[in-house]
Amino acid sequence: MLDLQSTSQGLAEAFLRQLGAVEEIFTRQLESDLPAVSQLATHVSRYRGKMLRPSLTILSGLTAVEGDLEQLESESLQRLAAVIEMIHMATLVHDDVLDDADERRGTQTVNNLRGNELAVMLGDYLISNAFHLCSTIGDPSLNEALGKTTNTLCEGELVQLHHRDDLSLDLPTYMEIVRRKTAVLVGACGRLGAQVMGGSPELCTALELYGEHLGTAFQIRDDVLDLEGDVETVGKSVGRDLEKGKLTLPVILLLETIPENEFHDVLEVIRCKDAQELKSRIHASGTIEGALEIAQDEISKGKDAVNGIISDSLHPIFEELANSVLTRSR
Amino acid sequence: MLDLQSTSQGLAEAFLRQLGAVEEIFTRQLESDLPAVSQLATHVSRYRGKMLRPSLTILSGLTAVEGDLEQLESESLQRLAAVIEMIHMATLVHDDVLDDADERRGTQTVNNLRGNELAVMLGDYLISNAFHLCSTIGDPSLNEALGKTTNTLCEGELVQLHHRDDLSLDLPTYMEIVRRKTAVLVGACGRLGAQVMGGSPELCTALELYGEHLGTAFQIRDDVLDLEGDVETVGKSVGRDLEKGKLTLPVILLLETIPENEFHDVLEVIRCKDAQELKSRIHASGTIEGALEIAQDEISKGKDAVNGIISDSLHPIFEELANSVLTRSR
Repeated sequence: MLDLQSTSQGLAEAFLRQLGAVEEIFTRQLESDLPAVSQLATHVSRYRGKMLRPSLTILSGLTAVEGDLEQLESESLQRLAAVIEMIHMATLVHDDVLDDADERRGTQTVNNLRGNELAVMLGDYLISNAFHLCSTIGDPSLNEALGKTTNTLCEGELVQLHHRDDLSLDLPTYMEIVRRKTAVLVGACGRLGAQVMGGSPELCTALELYGEHLGTAFQIRDDVLDLEGDVETVGKSVGRDLEKGKLTLPVILLLETIPENEFHDVLEVIRCKDAQELKSRIHASGTIEGALEIAQDEISKGKDAVNGIISDSLHPIFEELANSVLTRSR
Repeated sequence: MLDLQSTSQGLAEAFLRQLGAVEEIFTRQLESDLPAVSQLATHVSRYRGKMLRPSLTILSGLTAVEGDLEQLESESLQRLAAVIEMIHMATLVHDDVLDDADERRGTQTVNNLRGNELAVMLGDYLISNAFHLCSTIGDPSLNEALGKTTNTLCEGELVQLHHRDDLSLDLPTYMEIVRRKTAVLVGACGRLGAQVMGGSPELCTALELYGEHLGTAFQIRDDVLDLEGDVETVGKSVGRDLEKGKLTLPVILLLETIPENEFHDVLEVIRCKDAQELKSRIHASGTIEGALEIAQDEISKGKDAVNGIISDSLHPIFEELANSVLTRSR
């Protein structure tokens, strides 16, 4: 998702080489002596898309070595990036079971193709391999941090499920769910990417904050895409959040700002899961713009978190990465 | 599941104190600041049953310190036992989703009570917490061993799913599935329990073998219970394996030993998932006894593996634990 035109050729090349190495490690880790298992691992690699998490992990590592591209060739950093991407893939596979989704990135989901049972186990296999790969880096603090991160992530998912079809879900609870289920893992990319390359505690904390804010904005953008996109560009079913009883940010804002005499009307539209009607009410109310403002605010906070801490030569690429979160159309 | 009457009172008390500590750690680890999450963790504790895995972990630790009960009070050993039990609980929760099971140990399954989605996420939360807790022991080799073990476990489950409704599943493939999905985790109790208490490599290997053989026997006993028990004593639906297209050992033996002219008849019975008819054919053919002989052979191999390696004072309790695997009725 990163446009590298504004960066030096040397940096762009080194960065892309690292991403390539991450993909190789990812694939190698999931190889099995059992053909049935290897086939599944190959299918999952088709889900790979924006590579936000590996990108941020590598860039964070690079800030810790102050942009020294030679030091960037670190197997530990590459493995860490693959670990986090593997956890992310596991959440996609299990999310698709939870959401009963048929398609992801224009390809059939595992649950659609091979059933929920296989998708549950494949997700487990990805989680297991992520923790195994993490332990081979040889830094026990990484394992502890990863475990803490995935605990929080699962809690976020559990609380979201708990609030399914809960029409009284308020903004603070929504933000807390997003923080746990999405932002914390992106924050871990920043913190651990810098940490594994010997970054200072201040740098690690700044990059964690940067990641968390980007992660939150990313999720809000996802919410908006569910309401405004069509299946070709978004690559997954539109209106699915409504159908699965998940209140997204534009819907929460609509319920919070609507005149009292229209409130019960809108509740009824949500209860009937009438996506078309809800979409038109949301578009009329301007809460998509409201949601995007909150996302934009998160992006600004993310940029502020690293301002003055990362070097001038690397600053533009962090600005660029932050901006790309909101301009993406899928 | 262990009858402690044949052991010294001091040993029995110390052992039970350790098991109590394991339960406490288990509960504490799953506590969350989110009430919705804590409630679920409480439900899972009702699944706790035979405690085979924590028992073997603690006893293996005890062999490493040559039966010195004072040294047994080890937080590392207790945590390790809780970690392995947590992984086991996660497999139960996800297995119940895979098997569409309504009951376990006389209590409603999470998937039955709260839906598949919640059960998937709760399983993930257990896996995540297991790895997190493991990393707090502070021995990175444990995390690597645990990750390798759960990779193998997931592979076993994936291959089993791959062979659903496969009526040509043969004995070697069946044994390999059982080794991966059940035996390897019980083997890890033996190896890692001894390792964390400083056991010699020979002792660790012997206890791993002991555990793997017991685990295999345990799974075969499970297969038999599915065919001969009733829901009150087994605590889960009977004939479920057949319904979900899983060939169990007595069925595989039946298909391998049946006269040619009856073969297609039996295939038809399996295809129609006629549990009553299949049960009566199995009882007539004597393949339950055949399966139990294979299980008994595994128990003998398990006992042989530790014979002469663990001290005379601890030997009886390992014999007792091995015997208990086949005498259990649920």
